[in-house]
Amino acid sequence: MILRSNPFKQPLLRRPRVRVGLAPGTIEAHPESAKPQIRMMAYGPDGFEERTLQHLGEMVPFAEKWPSLWIHVEGLGDEGVIQQLGERFALHKLALEDVISRNQQPKLEPYDDHLFLVALVAVPGDQLDLGQVNIFVGQNFILTLQERKLDWHESVRKRIREGRTRIRKLGTNYLSFALLDSMVDRYFPVIEEYGDRLTSLEEEVLANPAQDEIFRIHGIRKEFLALRTAVAPLKEVTRILSREDMPPITEETRLFFRDCYDHVSHLIDTIETDREVSRGLIDLCLSTLSHKMNEVMKVLTIIATIFIPLGFIAGLYGMNFNPERSPFNMPELNWYLGYPFVLGLMALTVMGLLIYFRKKGWLGGAGRDGGSENSKRP
Amino acid sequence: MILRSNPFKQPLLRRPRVRVGLAPGTIEAHPESAKPQIRMMAYGPDGFEERTLQHLGEMVPFAEKWPSLWIHVEGLGDEGVIQQLGERFALHKLALEDVISRNQQPKLEPYDDHLFLVALVAVPGDQLDLGQVNIFVGQNFILTLQERKLDWHESVRKRIREGRTRIRKLGTNYLSFALLDSMVDRYFPVIEEYGDRLTSLEEEVLANPAQDEIFRIHGIRKEFLALRTAVAPLKEVTRILSREDMPPITEETRLFFRDCYDHVSHLIDTIETDREVSRGLIDLCLSTLSHKMNEVMKVLTIIATIFIPLGFIAGLYGMNFNPERSPFNMPELNWYLGYPFVLGLMALTVMGLLIYFRKKGWLGGAGRDGGSENSKRP
Amino acid sequence: MILRSNPFKQPLLRRPRVRVGLAPGTIEAHPESAKPQIRMMAYGPDGFEERTLQHLGEMVPFAEKWPSLWIHVEGLGDEGVIQQLGERFALHKLALEDVISRNQQPKLEPYDDHLFLVALVAVPGDQLDLGQVNIFVGQNFILTLQERKLDWHESVRKRIREGRTRIRKLGTNYLSFALLDSMVDRYFPVIEEYGDRLTSLEEEVLANPAQDEIFRIHGIRKEFLALRTAVAPLKEVTRILSREDMPPITEETRLFFRDCYDHVSHLIDTIETDREVSRGLIDLCLSTLSHKMNEVMKVLTIIATIFIPLGFIAGLYGMNFNPERSPFNMPELNWYLGYPFVLGLMALTVMGLLIYFRKKGWLGGAGRDGGSENSKRP
Amino acid sequence: MILRSNPFKQPLLRRPRVRVGLAPGTIEAHPESAKPQIRMMAYGPDGFEERTLQHLGEMVPFAEKWPSLWIHVEGLGDEGVIQQLGERFALHKLALEDVISRNQQPKLEPYDDHLFLVALVAVPGDQLDLGQVNIFVGQNFILTLQERKLDWHESVRKRIREGRTRIRKLGTNYLSFALLDSMVDRYFPVIEEYGDRLTSLEEEVLANPAQDEIFRIHGIRKEFLALRTAVAPLKEVTRILSREDMPPITEETRLFFRDCYDHVSHLIDTIETDREVSRGLIDLCLSTLSHKMNEVMKVLTIIATIFIPLGFIAGLYGMNFNPERSPFNMPELNWYLGYPFVLGLMALTVMGLLIYFRKKGWLGGAGRDGGSENSKRP
Amino acid sequence: MILRSNPFKQPLLRRPRVRVGLAPGTIEAHPESAKPQIRMMAYGPDGFEERTLQHLGEMVPFAEKWPSLWIHVEGLGDEGVIQQLGERFALHKLALEDVISRNQQPKLEPYDDHLFLVALVAVPGDQLDLGQVNIFVGQNFILTLQERKLDWHESVRKRIREGRTRIRKLGTNYLSFALLDSMVDRYFPVIEEYGDRLTSLEEEVLANPAQDEIFRIHGIRKEFLALRTAVAPLKEVTRILSREDMPPITEETRLFFRDCYDHVSHLIDTIETDREVSRGLIDLCLSTLSHKMNEVMKVLTIIATIFIPLGFIAGLYGMNFNPERSPFNMPELNWYLGYPFVLGLMALTVMGLLIYFRKKGWLGGAGRDGGSENSKRP
Repeated sequence: MILRSNPFKQPLLRRPRVRVGLAPGTIEAHPESAKPQIRMMAYGPDGFEERTLQHLGEMVPFAEKWPSLWIHVEGLGDEGVIQQLGERFALHKLALEDVISRNQQPKLEPYDDHLFLVALVAVPGDQLDLGQVNIFVGQNFILTLQERKLDWHESVRKRIREGRTRIRKLGTNYLSFALLDSMVDRYFPVIEEYGDRLTSLEEEVLANPAQDEIFRIHGIRKEFLALRTAVAPLKEVTRILSREDMPPITEETRLFFRDCYDHVSHLIDTIETDREVSRGLIDLCLSTLSHKMNEVMKVLTIIATIFIPLGFIAGLYGMNFNPERSPFNMPELNWYLGYPFVLGLMALTVMGLLIYFRKKGWLGGAGRDGGSENSKRP
Repeated sequence: MILRSNPFKQPLLRRPRVRVGLAPGTIEAHPESAKPQIRMMAYGPDGFEERTLQHLGEMVPFAEKWPSLWIHVEGLGDEGVIQQLGERFALHKLALEDVISRNQQPKLEPYDDHLFLVALVAVPGDQLDLGQVNIFVGQNFILTLQERKLDWHESVRKRIREGRTRIRKLGTNYLSFALLDSMVDRYFPVIEEYGDRLTSLEEEVLANPAQDEIFRIHGIRKEFLALRTAVAPLKEVTRILSREDMPPITEETRLFFRDCYDHVSHLIDTIETDREVSRGLIDLCLSTLSHKMNEVMKVLTIIATIFIPLGFIAGLYGMNFNPERSPFNMPELNWYLGYPFVLGLMALTVMGLLIYFRKKGWLGGAGRDGGSENSKRP
Repeated sequence: MILRSNPFKQPLLRRPRVRVGLAPGTIEAHPESAKPQIRMMAYGPDGFEERTLQHLGEMVPFAEKWPSLWIHVEGLGDEGVIQQLGERFALHKLALEDVISRNQQPKLEPYDDHLFLVALVAVPGDQLDLGQVNIFVGQNFILTLQERKLDWHESVRKRIREGRTRIRKLGTNYLSFALLDSMVDRYFPVIEEYGDRLTSLEEEVLANPAQDEIFRIHGIRKEFLALRTAVAPLKEVTRILSREDMPPITEETRLFFRDCYDHVSHLIDTIETDREVSRGLIDLCLSTLSHKMNEVMKVLTIIATIFIPLGFIAGLYGMNFNPERSPFNMPELNWYLGYPFVLGLMALTVMGLLIYFRKKGWLGGAGRDGGSENSKRP
Repeated sequence: MILRSNPFKQPLLRRPRVRVGLAPGTIEAHPESAKPQIRMMAYGPDGFEERTLQHLGEMVPFAEKWPSLWIHVEGLGDEGVIQQLGERFALHKLALEDVISRNQQPKLEPYDDHLFLVALVAVPGDQLDLGQVNIFVGQNFILTLQERKLDWHESVRKRIREGRTRIRKLGTNYLSFALLDSMVDRYFPVIEEYGDRLTSLEEEVLANPAQDEIFRIHGIRKEFLALRTAVAPLKEVTRILSREDMPPITEETRLFFRDCYDHVSHLIDTIETDREVSRGLIDLCLSTLSHKMNEVMKVLTIIATIFIPLGFIAGLYGMNFNPERSPFNMPELNWYLGYPFVLGLMALTVMGLLIYFRKKGWLGGAGRDGGSENSKRP
Repeated sequence: MILRSNPFKQPLLRRPRVRVGLAPGTIEAHPESAKPQIRMMAYGPDGFEERTLQHLGEMVPFAEKWPSLWIHVEGLGDEGVIQQLGERFALHKLALEDVISRNQQPKLEPYDDHLFLVALVAVPGDQLDLGQVNIFVGQNFILTLQERKLDWHESVRKRIREGRTRIRKLGTNYLSFALLDSMVDRYFPVIEEYGDRLTSLEEEVLANPAQDEIFRIHGIRKEFLALRTAVAPLKEVTRILSREDMPPITEETRLFFRDCYDHVSHLIDTIETDREVSRGLIDLCLSTLSHKMNEVMKVLTIIATIFIPLGFIAGLYGMNFNPERSPFNMPELNWYLGYPFVLGLMALTVMGLLIYFRKKGWLGGAGRDGGSENSKRP
């Protein structure tokens, strides 16, 4: 049996790769990590400046000039850069370690004067792909660090450049919301696509269910599991950000995070609903498959059942009893109309059986399985 | 196989259509939204006035004259109207954005001097249809905004006109309850209809189960899921309104919201019970279907099993051994009563098999599957 | 297929019949409601008086003479009586509306100086039948209102008449407990009967499972659902009454409600356990049914499988090859012992097949399905 | 089908037998209850005395002499004794009623100066048997009351006699822990035995699954349900005893109850795990059963499928076309090697079918179901 | 049927082996326990010393010299050693009993001046193996006690020796975190291996499902259950350690335990996800198995169904009606092209049946089950 799409070829991203026995507290870059690229955006209500930095020192004049500073690091292959960032912005060492050690779960950790936030971003593509983003939120700076290109913050960058909305006025505090919101928004098209796949699978199951569909539903179910694992912790994160006092988040920004919380709740509800639908779909698929197989077996069995008695009659008159020895020995063989009589007998048998089967409802149309006529009038 | 009713033709209304990358804080009407129609109702204990407004400015004299003002906007195609409303009633900008962005989940959001409430209203019809309604509750005004005609507030309007009950005396505060209550009440006939469909499906399954019923139960189950998603958040909303201090809701009105809370609990309980019943129904349907198929197979197999030995006997005496060569070679062929003897042998075989089958209970009536006689007396 | 008992004939009592669009706050009797019959019981530590009242005014002298007054109204067909009660005892209007509108869920609502309690009473009979009882508990009065004859309070009445226990001494406060306790007690025989039905179904399934049993288990499961819906809210009601300060319930009576709470917990536990057992029973029934069908098919297939090779041998020697043309053409036909040889060949075939089947364990006894002998010694 | 062990013969002990309509507050012994036997144990750090009492008055001197008094009553057939106990130790009347009314659920009830504790003790034996024990814990006395011989406290008694551990020093306070701990410990061998049964069932299912095993797993599952019902409430009881201030339990004893709480948690976890395993076992059993049946059917069908074409060939040459009439009429019959040719044709057919079946993997070994060779190289 | 791997051979380690009736408070070594081996590690910011002790007294000088002392005991076969430890470090007696009594669940117990922690460590190997570790955390000492070699703390020991990280500076307080963290880390490779097994099972199921796979999935599921039981209590333990004030854990170390809590959450999430995947896998396996069996049955039935009508035709012309008696008696036998006519009839029959089957889609390729061509265009 050849499967056209094996949904299990590429493993999901959920396996933790922890180096057993390494001391906690060691900041050491993964050997295969890319060299960091540092982008800086400094802005205030009146304008903004954007640079790609060669080394972190270059940012000093901007940090002094502008009230808000956003440093974005792509590629975590150089622990020096991360340690410099830690020293310059007084980040906690444990948080720095979490940045380096990949496969963290989404979480929010408050430290004395900054917040540390980990989230997973959905990357567009055929296969479900989730990338980790680490965010530090300070009074007048925001750091975003990620291992590889994920392409989720350009819309925020553009809004800062255009400066139309409140984003430039409200500082890094509001920027933290804009970034988280942008990450959450990336899940909606993904969820929508999975919903569409589910709907088209539903249609296929109704039109013509096959074993193949079960494999694909199983594959989708696994991706829903991975999605839920990625999104579910964000509910608690946004709940805390929108309800509790978490400096440097101000009360004004809390109102915005309430919106974010609503979106995450919506995402989780949709995922859960889709998972329930997919479970029902598997049952539907299995029952339809077994129903179709039963239909096949029934038709074949009816054919066999009709011909077996006929075969018996034919066999009967194939016996070699000697009609010459006695008048009782198969006199039919010598009747004038013996053969037509037997053919008639056979036709009668077939008709009798067909009438019986029809009365039992076993010859009913394909859409309904048998039993329609007689069982409606018991 | 032709399905008479495809329950999946029209997708459910639960897919969020979020515009990725749009700045939060942008109020921008959907291009395909209808032009707003504004209806105003101003009333007090002594009377009421009702108008259809061309522009919002017309309402000023009424707002001054009457203590309670209810503005109803149908069609959200003009962001100007919404922004004017926001300015005149000092509504929070985030709430205005939620009004515009469709596919919100039901929720309650307290702002400084007004409440913002989102709910879904069930629209009568063949297909489950849910429409979003946004309500602002202020000290002396109520705004209701919705995308399209939903037809859920006429009964409240009528009560204000008639002025018999407390509705005119208790102001907008009580009106907020009357509106929410009216929305919740719209779910009862929907739930009842689904309950009736379930009951009639139950009867069909008992009378004559078919593959088709499984599709229909699957369809109903999906609509129950959508209903639960729409109603469940209202439980928390009404719980808060009936228990906690939420200005401008007064303590007196809180008692009424307790009633609302009871109704929502009742709805959710009924939906959950119906979902459990429907799950049991699928099992019932599957087991009955497979039982019926088994019955068919059993009867067919019994027929085949009876005729195969007969066919063997006939084949036996169709052999061409030469009786002339030896007295052992099929002497039956030359017996005087050879043929009657074989026919008798066949009759005995049939009787023996029938007796055996009956003793095993395999020929028992259709209502009971086999095994009745002998297994009752082990 | 004729079902002897259709468990779904009478629908369960759980459908809410809400009149959409009616103003909350309207007290209006159902047209088909019975005329109210009013019974009064007035008592104190020293004695008691019992009357059937024609109108409510008659109760005044008794209310003055005795410390405790219990008014029982059966039939809610006259809104005048209910409104009079409301005025005389200063009952809240919302509670009065709940009395009239049937199909409430059990609940407890505290008002300023009285409690309002709704419960469902189990009515003995073949079919699960639940009747709504409304109770108002005041400082020195208790009102019980119900739509129809439910027969649950006679034992309480008798205890007041006999005056042996503390019931006369502790006033209406204790009476509220005695009434609730009496209602809860009515569930125990019902649960017990359902448990007995389950046990007898279990025995039937073990002795001789049939499709019919699945319908009956499905029916019982639905009634368990309805029972749970009726009993579950009482857990919260009795928890509040036994833990929290709910005037006019005194601390002394709270201890008694603790007992009530235990009973309700016990009820719910039993219902949940029974539901789990019934779920296991369905699985058991399905597996036994399919096992029995498989047994049938196996025996029939074995018979067919034995006779088909025999039929082939017979067919072989029914061929008409001309033995006279060549010594290779079916010389067996002219053997002296040709026929006995073929019969022997057939006997050997049957024996060989039987030995093979027995070795495979397919002929093992009915209690064990096949495979016993050989698979124990792999 | 004869079942060797019907696990449902003896009903579980979980049905409440409540006498409907009896006034709460009535202490009345069950008619079939045994006469009480009263054992007394009085002890202090320096020694102990043990007596069997004829009447309760005899205990007075001991109660004065020793700081700790333990009265054990077996048989609740005499309400006089219970009422005397109630008066002498100032027990609450509601608790006394609970002692008499059997089939209570485990619970802890604090009264002013004593605790009332109900627990179920596992009685060793083939069938799951649970006996109710009622314990009153006072400042300097402990009462244990039970209906029948349960044999759970001898080890505690022995420890008091030996006086080696802290039991004599720490008074009734510690004794209450020792008694509860002893009761909890009785569950461990029971759980262990059920675990062993489950393991041996697992082995049977793997070696040779049969319908019988499903009945037995179903039986064990029911007993796990009953065990959980008996043990689960003890978790809350021991949690309260180990965490909250419950006079007369001292803070020192609370530390011991923490141990008890751990044991109960362990019990519940084990029961839950075993229930999950048993659920998996049923699935395993069903799938193995159906797999075996399928194997049988497959072999039988293969035999039939091979012989049916052969039978056709034989039938072909059994036709009576007259070779003398035309050279086209079955010339094979007159071939010199006609018969060997047909036999060879048949052998070729068999070989062809066998090769096809083998290629399809349908003749693969029994351990693997078909498809091994070809599907590994798609 | 031969199973290559019986996953149930070695029972899981979860059965409690409690000695019923033993007094709590008795410290008595198990007879089969190994003699204790005592290793000591004393260290401070400036250096460390490591010894294997013969008796506990030897540690006194080190305890005085160094601020942090770590005593590791392997083998609990000598109650003397444990009691000495208890006296020297003022450990609570109940905790010492827990050390001796094996099969504790993971837990954290605060005592006046030390913490007592029980955890299970995963031991590498083919079979899931969990070993109990008991840890006492005091102000300046840590005791680790275990029954047998478990090999989980060498990495911590090495870090102390190297002294590079903060481990030497932060004292026993930090050491407690390092030890717990090291234990938690041991689970990751175990989980990863089970995940890999699941993935390879998934691939097998997709390539070639067999009954065998179901046994193995069932086995893995049982091990997931055991893993969850071992890991789940650690979530609460680490939550308390990271959130609540638990002397001697300082606030600084609490931040580290937050990391530990994250890891445990991650573990539990992964286990739960894997369990869900494995459940889906069983369904997938069952459905694929039954699908394959159905495919087999279908092909076999098609063969039989084609040959049965052919056999009938052959049987028909094997009848012995006497063509000489009448022109109606099987004139075909004497036709010039009688035999070719019959062969043609048979060929037509086969073609008719094949066309019918193909139209019905029953001969569709193996990957898709039937119905592809025609049902796509209804």
